[in-house]
Amino acid sequence: MRAVILAAGEGSRLRALSQRPKPLIPLLGLPLIERSILALKECDIKDCIIITGCYADEIRDYLGNGRQLGVNITYLHNSDWKLGNGVSAATFQELYRENEKYILIMADHIFELEILKSVIEAAKIMEDDELLLASDNRLEKIHDLDECTKISATGSRAERLGKDLENFNAVDCGLFVDTGALQKALAKSIAQGAYALTDAVNILAEQGKVKLHFVNHNWVDVDDPASYKYCETLLLRSLIPPKDGLISRVINRKFSLRITKLLSSTKLTPNQITILSFLVSIVSAISFAFLNPILGGILAQFSSILDGVDGEIARLKYLQSKYGEVFDSILDRYADYFIVIGMSYAWYSTSANSLPVLLLSAAALTGLPMSMLFKEKYKTVTGKSYLPEINDGRLRYLPANRDGRLFLIMLGGIFNLIPATLLILAAVTHFQTLYRFKVARNLSNL
Amino acid sequence: MRAVILAAGEGSRLRALSQRPKPLIPLLGLPLIERSILALKECDIKDCIIITGCYADEIRDYLGNGRQLGVNITYLHNSDWKLGNGVSAATFQELYRENEKYILIMADHIFELEILKSVIEAAKIMEDDELLLASDNRLEKIHDLDECTKISATGSRAERLGKDLENFNAVDCGLFVDTGALQKALAKSIAQGAYALTDAVNILAEQGKVKLHFVNHNWVDVDDPASYKYCETLLLRSLIPPKDGLISRVINRKFSLRITKLLSSTKLTPNQITILSFLVSIVSAISFAFLNPILGGILAQFSSILDGVDGEIARLKYLQSKYGEVFDSILDRYADYFIVIGMSYAWYSTSANSLPVLLLSAAALTGLPMSMLFKEKYKTVTGKSYLPEINDGRLRYLPANRDGRLFLIMLGGIFNLIPATLLILAAVTHFQTLYRFKVARNLSNL
Repeated sequence: MRAVILAAGEGSRLRALSQRPKPLIPLLGLPLIERSILALKECDIKDCIIITGCYADEIRDYLGNGRQLGVNITYLHNSDWKLGNGVSAATFQELYRENEKYILIMADHIFELEILKSVIEAAKIMEDDELLLASDNRLEKIHDLDECTKISATGSRAERLGKDLENFNAVDCGLFVDTGALQKALAKSIAQGAYALTDAVNILAEQGKVKLHFVNHNWVDVDDPASYKYCETLLLRSLIPPKDGLISRVINRKFSLRITKLLSSTKLTPNQITILSFLVSIVSAISFAFLNPILGGILAQFSSILDGVDGEIARLKYLQSKYGEVFDSILDRYADYFIVIGMSYAWYSTSANSLPVLLLSAAALTGLPMSMLFKEKYKTVTGKSYLPEINDGRLRYLPANRDGRLFLIMLGGIFNLIPATLLILAAVTHFQTLYRFKVARNLSNL
Repeated sequence: MRAVILAAGEGSRLRALSQRPKPLIPLLGLPLIERSILALKECDIKDCIIITGCYADEIRDYLGNGRQLGVNITYLHNSDWKLGNGVSAATFQELYRENEKYILIMADHIFELEILKSVIEAAKIMEDDELLLASDNRLEKIHDLDECTKISATGSRAERLGKDLENFNAVDCGLFVDTGALQKALAKSIAQGAYALTDAVNILAEQGKVKLHFVNHNWVDVDDPASYKYCETLLLRSLIPPKDGLISRVINRKFSLRITKLLSSTKLTPNQITILSFLVSIVSAISFAFLNPILGGILAQFSSILDGVDGEIARLKYLQSKYGEVFDSILDRYADYFIVIGMSYAWYSTSANSLPVLLLSAAALTGLPMSMLFKEKYKTVTGKSYLPEINDGRLRYLPANRDGRLFLIMLGGIFNLIPATLLILAAVTHFQTLYRFKVARNLSNL
């Protein structure tokens, strides 16, 4: 499937934020149009046709042929962009291939990835002469309802669209899949002197040919400073994975999302942030070893927070990589090891009897990787993710996963209770492993 | 697909080995017919029709309705079994369902699983009136060629079958998929007074309707003590996984296969052997700790050998379980931990300065789980197995995987070089991890 991106408008209401052409205004590190292109790429749509108008040169200069983003970009120019966005959409007619289904998207609309994916899925069962329109009927959740194009719908058919419709039950998200029907309707409406995309969609709606796909995720039409802010908040919130541990959810994410927002505009890659987090844990280990447990503890917790940032930046800027995932998880183990060795060394250097240090440090060190070992093995054997928040049952609040362990270490550092911390670390990690044997045994799929 | 198992014959030539009915003669812990049923089950064929004759009651008493094996068994009795195996095969006519494809197998033929799988796959593209016959054209590899039913074939069509055929280029493996054609041919040949299965197959062969499926794996017609022995050797050899490490391949398997052969006739489960291997490693740890490093080292290596036996028994007796796989891999980590802690304790108890003990033991302990961590993470992220023998390149001989590590520990114990062993363990495991980062980075799929 190819994608047509409408990027012809002027977008004057965002001037307050930036002097750049609207599609190129950066939002959390990515210009609006680049985010749309990368989201499409994530859905395996790698052929984009961009319809330019107002800022044709700037957009072309910035995106080029798309090779840097791993996609192919073709440009079409609509010199009559001022007439209306229907004229821009109709520009695609010259490249349209008979019987092709293509996705039509506005450059300044930001969608959660799930919306794109579900629309592409829904497009598989369209009739040949239909237009599929992503729409939102969760009216209470819609940002800036006034500005939206409203839809009066019966079931999943649009009856009529319009900005000033009085009776409506959904709004237009600015995301279509066209089978060619829209191009014909555009030709017709433009011939009648009606230049807005909505005019052509209404021609099809009258024929009962506009099928609505109701979305369940968030989207924003970024057209003024308020919606820009709203979009930032929405995107940041979408970065929290569903399977976060307790400490992550309640404490770490509050900080990591702020750091992610701050770092998003820099060129720092997720892998660089992984290394940064690792280095912080090394400094934590050294602080512990040289008898500054308060600093050691705080840095351990800071490293834990940074450990969330690499993933957030990766998801936010479409920079996920399999290598990054392996790299992060192995380096995390080393970070844990160094911190616990630092603590053990501190205890050793102040203790008369080193046997308890040797044994307790061994018990704590060996417990550190067990949670990951179990989860990964469980996944390779069953094909399913082990979700501590669900599968660990009553033990889900045991601080035996990384967020919990580093939080324990912070407390141990601050209160200078190193032997006790090592003992608790060893106890919770090994106890968790024992418990998980039981869980695994009881799961019917094992 | 249903399976019909011919188990009507007398099998007098195996009397030398056992007084039990031939299909019930145990081979490496499983009666011949039970092995066939479990192999079929492994291929998702869970409805078996057993044609009994000579030992009807004994077979029924032993297998029952199959529930204990997780399959459904129906019995058909052929009181005229002495006439020939064609009469037994024809007994199935009364349960045959129009247009059904079924697999026909001899109770005393043992096949490597890949043969069954490939025959079932090949059966998907049969014509409606064909008979598919598994056959082997690797004549030099065939055990007891004299006893085989020979095939004269043109391409993948059988022209003629017979025990005394002079010109032949393949042999019959005793494994068929019938579309109903064979049942018709059996009726015809029996009416003509020809009672052998081969007689009916020859009727179809004359019509060009016997399609041959050439096998690439091993099989045995177990009908005398020599073929029984051969089958044991073959099955044991098939238990060696393709991705064994150096020490496993060259040393451990030599012993573990012998132990597996010995234990196969006991009721010991794979999980019990896993626990046994773990207990041996605990005794090894204690031996090290109480300053008997030679015994500690030997027991560590013995535990490593036993670590192969659980998997061998599981594969041999169709006792694999996902739980067993998780259980084994986690318990292995604990076994490693205990042995290294035992070594560290021994060093500590004889050393004036305990700081090197603390640091080197930490370095060794933390290295132990890294190989597994990396391999499992690699698999969950890429969906592919990390194969040290291939992916580790020049480092594949580094003794950093479990077989190599425990071998190092044995050497360290025997030569009483505990600090050096800990140092080498730490060095090889962490170096391997560093190297694997590089490998992972270079793999195009990451």
